[in-house]
Amino acid sequence: MKTIVLKFGGTSVGSIERIKKVADIISSYKKKKNKVVVISSAMSGVTNDLIRKSELLSNYFDKAEYDTLLSTGEQVACALLAGRLVHIGYNARSWLSWQLPIITEGPHSGARINRVVVKDLSKYLKSGGIPVITGFQGINEKMRITTIGRSGSDATAIMLAKFIKADECIIYTDVDGVYTTDPRQYNQAKKIKKIFYDEMLEMASLGSKVMQPTSVQDAKLNKIDIKVKSSFVNKSGTLITGLKKDFSDQIITGISSTKNDAKITIVGVKDKPGVAASVFKPLSDNLINVDMIVQNISLNGKETDLTFTIKSSDIIKTEKLIRQNKKISFKKISFDKNVSKVSIIGVGMITTPGISYRMFQALASKKINILVISTSEIKISVLISSKHTKKAISVLHKEFKLD
Amino acid sequence: MKTIVLKFGGTSVGSIERIKKVADIISSYKKKKNKVVVISSAMSGVTNDLIRKSELLSNYFDKAEYDTLLSTGEQVACALLAGRLVHIGYNARSWLSWQLPIITEGPHSGARINRVVVKDLSKYLKSGGIPVITGFQGINEKMRITTIGRSGSDATAIMLAKFIKADECIIYTDVDGVYTTDPRQYNQAKKIKKIFYDEMLEMASLGSKVMQPTSVQDAKLNKIDIKVKSSFVNKSGTLITGLKKDFSDQIITGISSTKNDAKITIVGVKDKPGVAASVFKPLSDNLINVDMIVQNISLNGKETDLTFTIKSSDIIKTEKLIRQNKKISFKKISFDKNVSKVSIIGVGMITTPGISYRMFQALASKKINILVISTSEIKISVLISSKHTKKAISVLHKEFKLD
Repeated sequence: MKTIVLKFGGTSVGSIERIKKVADIISSYKKKKNKVVVISSAMSGVTNDLIRKSELLSNYFDKAEYDTLLSTGEQVACALLAGRLVHIGYNARSWLSWQLPIITEGPHSGARINRVVVKDLSKYLKSGGIPVITGFQGINEKMRITTIGRSGSDATAIMLAKFIKADECIIYTDVDGVYTTDPRQYNQAKKIKKIFYDEMLEMASLGSKVMQPTSVQDAKLNKIDIKVKSSFVNKSGTLITGLKKDFSDQIITGISSTKNDAKITIVGVKDKPGVAASVFKPLSDNLINVDMIVQNISLNGKETDLTFTIKSSDIIKTEKLIRQNKKISFKKISFDKNVSKVSIIGVGMITTPGISYRMFQALASKKINILVISTSEIKISVLISSKHTKKAISVLHKEFKLD
Repeated sequence: MKTIVLKFGGTSVGSIERIKKVADIISSYKKKKNKVVVISSAMSGVTNDLIRKSELLSNYFDKAEYDTLLSTGEQVACALLAGRLVHIGYNARSWLSWQLPIITEGPHSGARINRVVVKDLSKYLKSGGIPVITGFQGINEKMRITTIGRSGSDATAIMLAKFIKADECIIYTDVDGVYTTDPRQYNQAKKIKKIFYDEMLEMASLGSKVMQPTSVQDAKLNKIDIKVKSSFVNKSGTLITGLKKDFSDQIITGISSTKNDAKITIVGVKDKPGVAASVFKPLSDNLINVDMIVQNISLNGKETDLTFTIKSSDIIKTEKLIRQNKKISFKKISFDKNVSKVSIIGVGMITTPGISYRMFQALASKKINILVISTSEIKISVLISSKHTKKAISVLHKEFKLD
């Protein structure tokens, strides 16, 4: 008898019809004699509606009340889903985070799950019951409700899997898995059967919307295998797991690309020790996220060109901060909004030499110019003109045999 | 320094603008240096929407989940209201029924408040904080959320007033008090300044929508004075209180009338011991509420006519049950849908003789025929043709000097 944690996202429980469908999915696991723990998000749209209401009452709505407010979304979804499971003949009940309890630490709206008390829950599972637990929330030491950030229901599922010692943790969502690249960008994209945590972390932070990086990190730390599946179609999903001995010959697992990046070049910066820090400190202070950075060689030893990328929405703020910055002097600034970062990701590149050469060669074969390069152990990213993004994905997908 | 319980109904917190207004009302009490305990209902419409959702999932939606579901309505309203109070500069927080806790007994959806633990609440009040407590709910011994019936937020306010030993309990609603009769029926209706519990109980069960009879009964049992006020207009309300020595010369406090009543007469019933029980048992078994009953004198000792009133919506069911009833025999049944029960209510009639005579005389002066009469210690009701209802209210209002 397996213990399986099933988590359903907002779109999966987004309507009465969807809740009926989800109850049927849960039933299919129960019929196979599994112990099933269900985690539910709020019905899609509900949380945003509550946030809107709070914003109409205050620009700085009290964080503790904000959490108490938002937590009702999951409570509604769990009560409806548990009621439906009872209706179709199961022993089921909603279980609110304070009833377990799920104990969190850290500030309101940004808490982290510290511990889940599973004593009563284990007993209930043994008796054949289906607990339906509110995701995204917990209580703090003052018995106030806390929330653990948007998409926090994934974190709830992973921590429940940890504390209940589950055999499987399945995340049901509105996509049927993780793809080699965005299928809307490239129709030859293939679903990945198995991806390692580290690869998923790079995929996630580069724009794959399937799971939040923090949840993947939680799963990695707690060694919880996660299966991502669709609650809309009955297809095999993607397994997110740890690096094991049997890891495949696949060198590259996926390709990701960004939109809305901008490249900034500061030309003729007076080169002296600490100049990069002087440039980037004010940006960091103003929460502007700087991604790729290249500092060109200073030929005469006196001046250098500094290139980096930011979100295009930060351009005006960034320019202002650089022009106001009295610690640096330079000749001019130039901006390019039409850039995109394309990355290839795979743990295979650690042990396989020549991957970067193959990437650059493939792009060159299509006359795609590389503006900036950055690399990590399991990722190579290049900045290119955004008009070439699709072409780049296509040629790389073929080069690394993902088709 | 007074301790005041303020309860706000669903329409009072029915929109963002209303919540802002309610926060200002609370502020006005706080400025007068009172300790203030706030109880809030769900925003109007929310509870019905949740009920609709549950009905779409099951005809017999699990009662425990129903309570967990519905309780979110008050949680949302309390979090929003507390957040607004913080925004305008007060120390305030939402307080959920499990956080106090409010302990209930009895079945889900029909629980009653047994005890309110006020230790932390008292401390918070002393420190100047404004607690905003969820009405209509509590927890049972299994730590599950219970609800105490529709309009149960009034009961929450009364029990809070009891356990916190409040000086005042003010029910804010969408009407500005209790009137001598329905102002839509008679435009000379006057607001009652002070009404006794027993009078209010008669008014409430006869159609005055201001407060549920069970809440008035709770207030009476716990000797809590209640003031009913409007949160929409700033006017003095109605005080609902216990009979005291100083009670006024006013004999009649109010006049109520019903709609949708029907009179049934069973003609020529074979008269024998237990015949009335034989007639009414099947009606009671089928939850048909029988109100006024008159059994005419059986002249020949063999047959009698039985007249009673029911809700007009029950006519078809009632006729069927009587015709199917093999324990009785009769000549015919007649129905009259166009009847209305008009009642005069007042504790003064206990000590003042001749009230019923004055009532019948006043009606006779307007040629209004009385079909059925029933009386209690503080109420006289007459059944009349519904076309005379307005005229009857008018003449009685004048007769008993309520104008």
